This record gives sequence, structure tokens and C-alpha cells, in this order.
Amino acid sequence: MRIHLPADQMPTAWYNALPVMPEPLQPPLHPGTREPVGPDDLAPLFPMALIEQEMSPQQWIDIPGEVLDILRLWRPTPLVRAERLEQALGTPARIYFKDESVSPAGSHKPNTAVPQAFYNKREGVKRLTTETGAGQWGTALSFACTQYEMDCKVYMVRASYEQKPYRRILMETWGGEVVPSPVDDPSHPGSLGIAITDAVLDAVARDDTHYALGSVLNHVLLHQTVIGLEAQEQLALAGERVPDVVVGCCGGGSNLGGIALPYMTNPDVRLVAAEPASCPTLTEGTFEYDFGDSAGVTPLMPMYTLGHDFVPPSIHAGGLRYHGDSPIISALVKCGRMEAVAYPQGKTFEAAIQFANTEGKLPAPEAGHVLRAVIDEALAAKELNEERVILFNYCGHGFLDLAAYDDFLNGRLVDA
Amino acid sequence: MRIHLPADQMPTAWYNALPVMPEPLQPPLHPGTREPVGPDDLAPLFPMALIEQEMSPQQWIDIPGEVLDILRLWRPTPLVRAERLEQALGTPARIYFKDESVSPAGSHKPNTAVPQAFYNKREGVKRLTTETGAGQWGTALSFACTQYEMDCKVYMVRASYEQKPYRRILMETWGGEVVPSPVDDPSHPGSLGIAITDAVLDAVARDDTHYALGSVLNHVLLHQTVIGLEAQEQLALAGERVPDVVVGCCGGGSNLGGIALPYMTNPDVRLVAAEPASCPTLTEGTFEYDFGDSAGVTPLMPMYTLGHDFVPPSIHAGGLRYHGDSPIISALVKCGRMEAVAYPQGKTFEAAIQFANTEGKLPAPEAGHVLRAVIDEALAAKELNEERVILFNYCGHGFLDLAAYDDFLNGRLVDA
Repeated sequence: MRIHLPADQMPTAWYNALPVMPEPLQPPLHPGTREPVGPDDLAPLFPMALIEQEMSPQQWIDIPGEVLDILRLWRPTPLVRAERLEQALGTPARIYFKDESVSPAGSHKPNTAVPQAFYNKREGVKRLTTETGAGQWGTALSFACTQYEMDCKVYMVRASYEQKPYRRILMETWGGEVVPSPVDDPSHPGSLGIAITDAVLDAVARDDTHYALGSVLNHVLLHQTVIGLEAQEQLALAGERVPDVVVGCCGGGSNLGGIALPYMTNPDVRLVAAEPASCPTLTEGTFEYDFGDSAGVTPLMPMYTLGHDFVPPSIHAGGLRYHGDSPIISALVKCGRMEAVAYPQGKTFEAAIQFANTEGKLPAPEAGHVLRAVIDEALAAKELNEERVILFNYCGHGFLDLAAYDDFLNGRLVDA
Repeated sequence: MRIHLPADQMPTAWYNALPVMPEPLQPPLHPGTREPVGPDDLAPLFPMALIEQEMSPQQWIDIPGEVLDILRLWRPTPLVRAERLEQALGTPARIYFKDESVSPAGSHKPNTAVPQAFYNKREGVKRLTTETGAGQWGTALSFACTQYEMDCKVYMVRASYEQKPYRRILMETWGGEVVPSPVDDPSHPGSLGIAITDAVLDAVARDDTHYALGSVLNHVLLHQTVIGLEAQEQLALAGERVPDVVVGCCGGGSNLGGIALPYMTNPDVRLVAAEPASCPTLTEGTFEYDFGDSAGVTPLMPMYTLGHDFVPPSIHAGGLRYHGDSPIISALVKCGRMEAVAYPQGKTFEAAIQFANTEGKLPAPEAGHVLRAVIDEALAAKELNEERVILFNYCGHGFLDLAAYDDFLNGRLVDA
């Protein structure tokens, strides 16, 4: 069952988590002075509109009409009740998901790529640089830049660049320029932290260029809240009050934040982050100030981190490989408002294939993590004979990740 | 603008073209005797329910509830008004498309794969064989067989098997067994005609096995009419009367038939087939009785054909490579009810990329052909300053065809 929200009921403002955090967020620190950064420190990288959003005390922030015009190409996204998955599990739980795989890039990422490109364009920026891991974000930004006739250069984690030629081609089809990172060491598999360094150094070296980040930062999670805001309306249309639990997979935290933050002030709603055991930031990392990139050129952020020089094992097929986590998500986990679980990837692919068989949608490996958590929640509800309402974010499809399925089906995927 | 049809208004019967053909369709002939085939001749390959549909005089044929249950995973599909494409073209035409890319397999093919698997299962068949070219059909049948716990073996045209590993993996993820065809000559690029021979010979050799064809036959086009039936309802919701022109790309003819046949009795609606110049069945083929496969083991059908031993040039990247065409489509073209146009593939990729940039959807190479025709129609309307309403079938996405885009973007695609 799919619940469609009429186009004229699409949210016209984003939900800002900052004013309702359980405790005020600690500020980012300058990498040199270790003093709190101000707008001027960030101006070489970001347009002023995004810097304001990064620190805004306003509960609601209007979505510009020019942004809505493009988001409407695929939004509102469907809310789907996964009835055939429920039946296969024999659970009394009712499972709903937001289908973010219907976007141009096949994931939730364009929700923020479009406004980021828009605000940069409006402030005269002609070119954006960024990093990409699994390739979802680079695809989204390439698409967004094409809409505003801007240039886009993507530094792609080398392991992904080599494993995922289709992702590179899709970025190039939308006019993006893609190079493997690290740029100076062809033998290194790369990491998101290193690719961020590459992209940031490129941006600061050119006056016409800014940098765009696809997750982690407050303004990115802000833009993703359209997901949860739509879900609230659609659950009401489906006759549900609020979900008992909201689940998202978590790398940098943007898709999880997008669906979970609009529920953060309701204590009846559990919030759950699902992450990979091979990059267990929230479950095994340390909460401390750390750099956003590997070389220490970005501000320090208060977050769970595995260390900014962490390089995830190249056995790990999907995204979710960032060494740190969104400060907002980190703070919610630290204070106990949000739970976190970690899964080895074999279990996530089993869940993904069960979803593909029952619901007919092939998940991105990232989405395999949220599906593992959702299936486990549904089975726990069955054990307790409990009518749990589970809401999750189906963050993307896996059509460009089929090599990982091939590895899984043929026993070549290390189960870490 | 997307127009959603409520799930409870999904069509519950298919529209049968046979009773309203301008002239009665000539019967298929037995390959040995050259006499009209009867149900018994087809029984080794197909279940009786499909054989009846192949020849049925009924205008409407009920869709079984068990089939509707699965079709509802993705149907009704959205009808989308391509406003940003209209703006980019500066045309007064209003362009609408049915988005069949949202299905499990990413194309219209599951619309018939599901009922075919269902009827076979109901008659006790345990295993289906089939051929696939671009890979869309094999993916759809693998998905459908998984729904009914049947085995599925796919003979994949060798050139595609080698160029499209992701398609193979997707079929395997849904439990299909995939082998390259021809099975006995690893140096041959293969053709749909040869792969049909392989699949038919496999099916007749085993009692527990039937064969399934993804296009061409009357019952396949019948199952696809849900596309056009939904479009009629959705255009009405959008405030449109009937389209001035309905366009589909044409290989075997099933996606074109699906959207066009429900309009066939309305003389105000032009029907247009768009095919590749490298496999120009309708525009340069001969209308005659020919075999459906290369070896002459299938019945002879009255159709436009390039000869059953035709092997399309391996330069051609997408589907639409069949040597013949659906008898229904062939008859409509022959009597002048339907127009046909052919395009070299460079022009189709240009159209596909214009669509990707404006509407945010990456088309399958097959869909590039319908987009070329639609854009040309819209530009003709601009030339004449005419408010033409254009309806087309967006038959599938191109996420698994990105190698062809890579070739096009890098000048490696021969423009034939």
C-alpha cells in the first residue's frame, strides 16, 4: 500500500533541530586556534545562507520556491506499507517506509544537493567541489549543479571509483567531473576523510569555487527533514498516530536525521541508528572534538569518531564509511535520546534480499542496514505479540551496487 | 506534476485488441505443416489460460486477484507531466508519460511476467525458461518466478551477457539462473531469435517446464494494457480529454501496445512506433509469415520481419533488437492505423540526456527512442504553434545501461 501526499501539501519549510536539542550543541572549533568558528571562517567554503542555517535558532526555515520547483520532480515521495514483508515475517508490527529511492540520483541525497547548489548559485558561485564514497552524494550534486548550470568536481574514494564505474558514468552523464581520491597516491584505497581534504583544498584555492558536503553538517540534516515531515502527514492519512520506532541507517547521519528529527521532541517515539560493524562510529567510537577530514583542514566538530585518520576496511561494500558522525546525531545518542546498533554486512545483505523478494525493491547496501534493524524490530514485536508501528527510511536503491550483491551471492563478501 | 491513480481504481480487467482489430488477425501457422496452430500445438510451451487469452474474442479479460496483489507493489504507476522538458523545448505541447520504470525490474516487463508465472504455477508448472536481450525481460521473469516459488532459467543474448553483468546479477539476486546464448558457440554475439530457440528447446525437453515470452504475442500485449488503461483515467484526472498522439518505442511491441491499444478505436488519436535504425523492422522489414525464432521451431507469425536469421549489429546498445514484431502491431502499421519512425542511436541518446537533465530520470536506451520521437513531436507542435497533447510510455530506467552512456559520452558509440 502506497500513501501519496498531494503535491500541494509538500512541506514548504524545513524543521530545524537546533532549538529543540536536549542540550545546546557545542560549537565547531577552528582547526588552528581551537576557538569557536564564526561565519567568516566558513565563508571560503560555504555561501552565507547555508552558514546561517548551520547556526540558526529558528524552528522553521522556509524552503525557497526555486528549490521546491526542482524537489517536486520526485517529492513528495511515497510512504509505503511493507505488507508483503510483514506477511513473510508473520509479525503483528505494521512497517512503513519512505521511498527515497525514487529521486534522480536514487537516494535521499538530492534533497540537500538542490538547495546547496541553489544558495551557492544565488551568491555567485560558479563551481562546486565535493567528495563521494558510495557515489550517491556525487551523483546528487552533479544532478543539482546541472539544474543551475554550475560546474561540479567530485573526488571519489578510490576503492569506490574502481568498484563502481556505473556511479562515475552517471555523474558524468549529469556533467560532473570525477577523479579518484587520494589524487596523489594511486595505490591508496582512499577514505571519505581524505576525499574531503582533496575537495576542500580545491575549493579554497579558487575564488569561483565553493565546497559542498553531503552529510554530517546541521544544514544538511535540516534539508533532509522533508522526509520525516512528509512521513508525519502520510502516516496520518494511513490512520496511524505516531510510530513506536523510527529507524535509519547511519553513516554521516543525514538520512537518519531526515526521518527522525521531526519526531525528536516526542518521547513516545524511539529513534534508532543502524550502522556497519566495520565502521562502528556510534557504537564503538569516542565522543570528542575531531576534524571532519583526514588532514585536519576542516573545523573540529563534537562527535562520535573513530579518529580522523580512520580508513575503513575495503571489504565493506556500501556507503556509511565516514570516520565521524553528525554532531546532532552524536549528541542525541550521547544523551540517550537515540539508540544505535551495528551489524556485520552478511546480515544486512540477507535483509536486503528478503526485502527485494517481498517488496520488489533492490536496496542499496546502506539500506540493507536499516532493513536488518527493521526486520529485527518486527521479529521482536512478533515475539512479544505487540502491534508495533515501525517507520524507516528506504534511503536508496541498489541498481548501481550490484557488484556487491554478486560478491555476497558467491560467498566473496567478508562478513565483517 | 505527477498524477496518482488511487490504488482502488487500478484496472481489474485487461483490454483485448483482438475483437476490435481493423481486420481479423491472421492465425499463426505450424512450423511443420504450415496449417493454423490450435491450442494443443501450443500446450507444450504455454499453460491453457494463456493459450485461451492468445486467441480470445472477449473485449475484457479479468485480472486474477492473486496477480493484482503483486502488481499493486508498484501499480498504478504515476502519470507525469514533463513540464521542465516542455519548458526546455519551448513547446506549446503538453507532454505526459507513464512511468513504468518504478517496477521491481525497472521496466514495464513485470506487468506480464507476473500473470505468466501465475497461470503457469496454477497449472502445475514448476520451472520457466525464457530468453532476454537487454535484460529487462529476464529480470522481470526472475522476479515473478520468485513470487510463486518457481525456478527460472534465462538464456541471455551473449553480447548483452558480456556487456551487462549488472543485469545478470539482478536476475541471480531474484533466484534466476542465467546462461549466455547461443549456448553452443562462445564466439557468437547471439540474437533474440537464437536465444528463443535455446529457451524453447529447453522447455519442450522437460515435462515440468514451460516457456515464457516477454513480448510479441497477443497475451503479452494484453497484459500490458494496464498501462494505457491507467493513463486514460489519469489524463482525465489531469483535465485532459484524449491525447493527440500516443508514442512508444518498439522492439517486439509490448510496451507500445500496452499504452496504445486502449486508444486504438479512437480515430482522433494518432499512434506512433519508434524503432532503432539498426533493427528497422516496421520501417524496412517485409510483412510476411516468419518464424518467431532463428531455428524455425516456433510457429510462423504474420508480421513485419527482417528475416528470422537476422542478427542485429552488436554496436546497438539497448533492447529493441528482435527480427520481427508483434502481429497486432504489425497489422496496425500495415493497415495505416499506426505510424512508424526509425532513429539512429546517437539521436536517441541526445534525447535521453535532455530528459535526464530536465526531468531527473535516466532513461533506458530503449526509452531514448520514444523520447526522440516525443521531442520531435513537441518541436513540430512548436513550429505549428499547436497545443498538442502527447502521451508516451517511459518504459524503463537506464541505471543498468550506463556502459552505453559511457560509450556515447566518449564518442565510442557507432551512430547507426
